[in-house]
Amino acid sequence: MPNKTPRIAVDAMGGDHGLTGIVSAAVSAAKKGTPITLVGDEYMIRSELEKLDTGSCTIDVVHASQVVTMEDKPADAMRKKKDSSIQVACRLVKDGLADGVVSAGNSGATVAAGMFIIGRINGVLRPGMAGILPTEKKPMVLIDVGANVDSKPEHLFQYGIMADVFARDVLGFKNPRIGILTIGEEEGKGNSLVKTTYNMLKSSSLNFVGNIEGRDIFTGDVDVAVCDGFVGNVALKLSEGLANSLGNLLKGELKRDIVSKIGAMLAMKAFKRFGRLVDKSEYGGAPLLGLKGIVLVCHGKADSLAIERAIEMAARFVKNDAVAHLKEGLAAHSEITESTL
Amino acid sequence: MPNKTPRIAVDAMGGDHGLTGIVSAAVSAAKKGTPITLVGDEYMIRSELEKLDTGSCTIDVVHASQVVTMEDKPADAMRKKKDSSIQVACRLVKDGLADGVVSAGNSGATVAAGMFIIGRINGVLRPGMAGILPTEKKPMVLIDVGANVDSKPEHLFQYGIMADVFARDVLGFKNPRIGILTIGEEEGKGNSLVKTTYNMLKSSSLNFVGNIEGRDIFTGDVDVAVCDGFVGNVALKLSEGLANSLGNLLKGELKRDIVSKIGAMLAMKAFKRFGRLVDKSEYGGAPLLGLKGIVLVCHGKADSLAIERAIEMAARFVKNDAVAHLKEGLAAHSEITESTL
Repeated sequence: MPNKTPRIAVDAMGGDHGLTGIVSAAVSAAKKGTPITLVGDEYMIRSELEKLDTGSCTIDVVHASQVVTMEDKPADAMRKKKDSSIQVACRLVKDGLADGVVSAGNSGATVAAGMFIIGRINGVLRPGMAGILPTEKKPMVLIDVGANVDSKPEHLFQYGIMADVFARDVLGFKNPRIGILTIGEEEGKGNSLVKTTYNMLKSSSLNFVGNIEGRDIFTGDVDVAVCDGFVGNVALKLSEGLANSLGNLLKGELKRDIVSKIGAMLAMKAFKRFGRLVDKSEYGGAPLLGLKGIVLVCHGKADSLAIERAIEMAARFVKNDAVAHLKEGLAAHSEITESTL
Repeated sequence: MPNKTPRIAVDAMGGDHGLTGIVSAAVSAAKKGTPITLVGDEYMIRSELEKLDTGSCTIDVVHASQVVTMEDKPADAMRKKKDSSIQVACRLVKDGLADGVVSAGNSGATVAAGMFIIGRINGVLRPGMAGILPTEKKPMVLIDVGANVDSKPEHLFQYGIMADVFARDVLGFKNPRIGILTIGEEEGKGNSLVKTTYNMLKSSSLNFVGNIEGRDIFTGDVDVAVCDGFVGNVALKLSEGLANSLGNLLKGELKRDIVSKIGAMLAMKAFKRFGRLVDKSEYGGAPLLGLKGIVLVCHGKADSLAIERAIEMAARFVKNDAVAHLKEGLAAHSEITESTL
């Protein structure tokens, strides 16, 4: 059922910043036309909503009596917090009352709730989490960024198929260039996981461009890079950390003499434009691909803009019928996937 | 035999920039007191030397009739190019005519020559390549950055022991903080490789600080991060690529309006200081640890300063008797290492 109006369930209780920013992001997205269901402590949510001009937007509230904290272990949270906002949100999708979930809460628990409540698309071996990174040109997709570790070639192969659909349906790429992240440019370079996956991708109908190295991620010359969740998560967090540290070092140097200080003030406009280019909020969340609905996992530190962007991404995913396209893509490649099982 | 004067064999034929920069780096290091043997095409090397003021420095030249190119496969290079500069340089160490090797040539071939000609220290399972990264504070060591992929816990454990010695003897750290690179802060997070290695490091006498994430690498709060060569190589190249891309994006924005342009010119001093802070040349090469001598693998793009710094590192390694300390460290931990074999 393509082009339906998607309803997104937003976990109001997740995130390091409390629910003020989340509720205001939800209102903002609702005003732009996406129906929202806010899930969490009803009293707290309604108090936040009262402060905002909600006008004629479609916002429902569904109460959830429990909250998963950042310290909870995913397995414990699954078992002991069945009425937590994230589980209630996922149940809305399962029951057809919402089409997607956005949460900035405990990512492990969010992944677990998505997998066990919403459930996997038939044939998906492991859902993969896609990170969307800014590059010198367009954004690119790194998958998996930590949903699974100790992956097998067939998992990586399916990540490629799923990220291809995501890049088309949500990022609007025509014919995404899919690469495999490894440690040498030539065919046959890498570890055993990469070598087998390489051959699977090569025999697929994807626009496979071969090996890419860490240094190629940010040039924007490839649209999707496939890797194991351990590697992807290290890469994602390292990028975040390096960008921060470089920023700190540069700021320190710009303050160290008065002429540089004045120069930096004059160049403020450029620094701001630069900041927007590399702003994580622009692609607010990491989609968990392979479920019967869409779950957007936001950073615990996500601000209101990031949450709003994540809601928009989830809505675009549903509008463009990406789940159906995921099914088609996976089915078309099932023979290659099964060849290694 | 501690505190001896080390002689370093420099591969004059490696690197993307030709031998001019390499020879001048060698002369510069020799002038500061490190005896050098330049290895490669004797005629070419002597022509370069003639252009420089070599004064009273100790520089020998040893002829090698072959050159390993960047395109050569390491195994082919080992077999077919026995008189290549890198093999001749390693043979000098094997024969006691030099104490260490510096090369900016084909890194795979350099690692292979080091392993098969100089040979491993008794008990070393896999030599590991250490990358030295600038951070917000002191530099830090990431090991392994690509000598091996598909590593086992005992390999990672030995990398930790060897990097500890390197950080003490060459970087001058008193009690290096050793962490394991993984994807969560708490004990028990990561893949199966990391979990086993964690326990080995925990039961060692190293100053083990536990799990560290990608984002912690550049803060400078840990001195050594241990990881598989696949992960380390991706991390190293990604850092390089991201720093470049951020630089390009910022430069682009600074040029986009005239006020920012003027501001950037005024702040030039700060940008230069910043550039020096993050300059790769500062720690010119990646040491291959675990051999009966030291091999410094430089980036193909290494400039003259980087090569000179690499020569200095190699010399410091020998002067401080690091091979003996590696042996001691490995022997002291052999029981833990063998527990998983």
